Amino acid sequence: MFQQQHLLGIAPLNPAEITAILDRAEQFVDQSRSGSKHSEQLTGLTQINMFFENSTRTQASFEIAGKRLGADVMNMAMQASSIKKGETLIDTALTLNAMHPDLLVVRHPNSGAVNLLSQKVNCAVLNAGDGRHEHPTQALLDALTIRRRKGRLRRLTIAICGDIAHSRVARSNIILLGKMENRVRLVGPRTLMPPGIEKFGVEVTDDMAAGLADADVVMMLRLQRERMDGGFIPSEREYFHRFGLNAEKLGHAKPDAIVMHPGPMNRGVEIDGEIADDINRSVIQEQVEMGVAVRMAAMDLLVEARRNAM
Amino acid sequence: MFQQQHLLGIAPLNPAEITAILDRAEQFVDQSRSGSKHSEQLTGLTQINMFFENSTRTQASFEIAGKRLGADVMNMAMQASSIKKGETLIDTALTLNAMHPDLLVVRHPNSGAVNLLSQKVNCAVLNAGDGRHEHPTQALLDALTIRRRKGRLRRLTIAICGDIAHSRVARSNIILLGKMENRVRLVGPRTLMPPGIEKFGVEVTDDMAAGLADADVVMMLRLQRERMDGGFIPSEREYFHRFGLNAEKLGHAKPDAIVMHPGPMNRGVEIDGEIADDINRSVIQEQVEMGVAVRMAAMDLLVEARRNAM
Amino acid sequence: MFQQQHLLGIAPLNPAEITAILDRAEQFVDQSRSGSKHSEQLTGLTQINMFFENSTRTQASFEIAGKRLGADVMNMAMQASSIKKGETLIDTALTLNAMHPDLLVVRHPNSGAVNLLSQKVNCAVLNAGDGRHEHPTQALLDALTIRRRKGRLRRLTIAICGDIAHSRVARSNIILLGKMENRVRLVGPRTLMPPGIEKFGVEVTDDMAAGLADADVVMMLRLQRERMDGGFIPSEREYFHRFGLNAEKLGHAKPDAIVMHPGPMNRGVEIDGEIADDINRSVIQEQVEMGVAVRMAAMDLLVEARRNAM
Repeated sequence: MFQQQHLLGIAPLNPAEITAILDRAEQFVDQSRSGSKHSEQLTGLTQINMFFENSTRTQASFEIAGKRLGADVMNMAMQASSIKKGETLIDTALTLNAMHPDLLVVRHPNSGAVNLLSQKVNCAVLNAGDGRHEHPTQALLDALTIRRRKGRLRRLTIAICGDIAHSRVARSNIILLGKMENRVRLVGPRTLMPPGIEKFGVEVTDDMAAGLADADVVMMLRLQRERMDGGFIPSEREYFHRFGLNAEKLGHAKPDAIVMHPGPMNRGVEIDGEIADDINRSVIQEQVEMGVAVRMAAMDLLVEARRNAM
Repeated sequence: MFQQQHLLGIAPLNPAEITAILDRAEQFVDQSRSGSKHSEQLTGLTQINMFFENSTRTQASFEIAGKRLGADVMNMAMQASSIKKGETLIDTALTLNAMHPDLLVVRHPNSGAVNLLSQKVNCAVLNAGDGRHEHPTQALLDALTIRRRKGRLRRLTIAICGDIAHSRVARSNIILLGKMENRVRLVGPRTLMPPGIEKFGVEVTDDMAAGLADADVVMMLRLQRERMDGGFIPSEREYFHRFGLNAEKLGHAKPDAIVMHPGPMNRGVEIDGEIADDINRSVIQEQVEMGVAVRMAAMDLLVEARRNAM
Repeated sequence: MFQQQHLLGIAPLNPAEITAILDRAEQFVDQSRSGSKHSEQLTGLTQINMFFENSTRTQASFEIAGKRLGADVMNMAMQASSIKKGETLIDTALTLNAMHPDLLVVRHPNSGAVNLLSQKVNCAVLNAGDGRHEHPTQALLDALTIRRRKGRLRRLTIAICGDIAHSRVARSNIILLGKMENRVRLVGPRTLMPPGIEKFGVEVTDDMAAGLADADVVMMLRLQRERMDGGFIPSEREYFHRFGLNAEKLGHAKPDAIVMHPGPMNRGVEIDGEIADDINRSVIQEQVEMGVAVRMAAMDLLVEARRNAM
């Protein structure tokens, strides 16, 4: 069923593989909620988290996931390291590879860096976000959250709103939701919309009312000012007025539409604090919980696939 | 006996609860010294250390304590994290909470931040120091050290000397030692004494000779220049002359008085190096040892109390 | 056989002790390659890595080594810590010592700091590099790599090339290779050669052709610009021209000579990228692999020696 050697993105996965990860993750959700969080699937294995960009929440999620499966988990803060001393990414990867890790979790500011790295090592590589390319575990945790809340992951109308251009989260979600035959609408200012995005089979609009009309899911994105290099940068007040999710704009979606956000949130910029905290609509905390489960599932399945391939 | 859900400060504890923690800690002291340091009380549980202020020694102590009890321990360096990205403390807490930790150990520069956070999460929260408010495990480790050396924790005369105003260590110790019916004297410059401190039932003086007279315990505080915002800052030489502990000043205390310091020490500022190293008087290393034991005890009891409450 | 209390350098070891470490390490190489990487020699013990200088690769190697032996491993980032608050090295060491660690792994910018520290604590201390003094585990991993590739560690001709003056790696290797009766040649600019080095029984030259003639092993060093304080600093281009290892210069060595580098490499400065990547000549990745095994062996033997001494 699941025969991937790495988890580099959503693009290489077929629908059956996506479903396999989500199904396995469901088992870990049940396990965590039952209070017996610890199991032994990765006992004796070494997981190295190589984060070339800071990310408390994603790194913590992968670390908890690995430790709950019994792995020896190590965090490498790569900024302060050999990179400074002039070592190349590939040499760093080869060095860690020589220590016989079983799982490498990599975040890197450059699109494609994680794919390149995966070709140089003997172990399973998981992409924890590379440039503007992919962030597959985020899309998988979003998918699991949607499937649990909506009872299915097919034929839903999903509005992804905000800064699409700078978002690997959006990109991975667009690919996943498309593979699962959903209707995806992208809503945001034209200047934050990547050129040619329509070829992914999505609808594009800069009008929140039209974009959210009858949506089952409203997925807000973080306004990533740190990634914006020149060009149009809206003021926060102006952005919130036109694109920030509030009760009035959410009124265009279905009455039972759920609200998602990958975090960390800019309250009052892309989302109104009251909507974020509304436990009837917001599934933001559940997304975080699903994140641990999906990462446990992905690591468990990758290790299993490699054992079966030997 | 011990039914607390959190350890937010000494103020919420009654004497029986304080004694319960110290008694449990004694067991861990024996265990550690016997060479079989590892046990399984927290096996399968997740402990997250969230330090919004750097502290090598306190974080290391909590980390060792958790690992020796079998927990999966994770350190979050919060400065470099989502805080920078504009996320609120509460959102950060809710995010970690959604990952189902069992114990959150939190240090924060703002008084009251840890209490606030404890109201938002489902797990046991331990205060590892918040602003000028409390640092309960420090007071408990001091209490254990005193009890072991003096054979009791009642009716002792304890001089707490130095920068009282900026010290959460002093505050937690004053509360604990008061609850246990000790006589507490605060000694230091008037400018480093918090207004209204007499209401805690302590004596206040700016004269070391009077303050140390017949004391059983002399507890020196660190001069925390990093917390002083304007106002009178004494020169180190001047401070040492008037308030630094040396053999002459210690001569006013009882002949068997013990000398304590929470560390890290400024030798030659608040304490003479020779006194700090005098193994007949100084219990500074023992305080560190008791720190691990007290933190093991507090985490063990909190987890036990939550299990019993379910 | 192995009765050392600490591993502070190669100088205190006799040839039998060096051999004992290498033999034990071979067992861990076999174990790691067989896929059952985890064992229990250090279960229940506490290993603290105190790195006063950043080093991703060495710290990662010690961390993996400890975790694979079952230890509780803690990393202390000492720069950001109590050091800033004015605490002395000895006080920091005494504080950690009071927490009852079993193994302290220490890297420090000052030569001799690790020896000093070892006199103050009750546990085994491993030197992970101190100033320009020693880096014993690096020399041991180099020795293991050589022994495996050459079938022996005696009567070989070994050229150590580059920045000898700033290199504790060179110093530990010179001592080890001398003790094992090898012929050691140092090759590099006179300005990067420590005065009086000939007393270690080595040959010195600034001519790569002469230095590499008939060598069995060519060990390149990293050009450590960060350690150079004034004096002659060659341009990278000039340095590579005269002292960088390329195919032409390597042609002077024996046809089966191996090429080593402690990493991280400056490609195009001290070594040509093609040579570094030539799997028939370069053993650079194998050195990293041997590093984990040698560190496992050293920690295992130190703990064993202390148990036997009790």
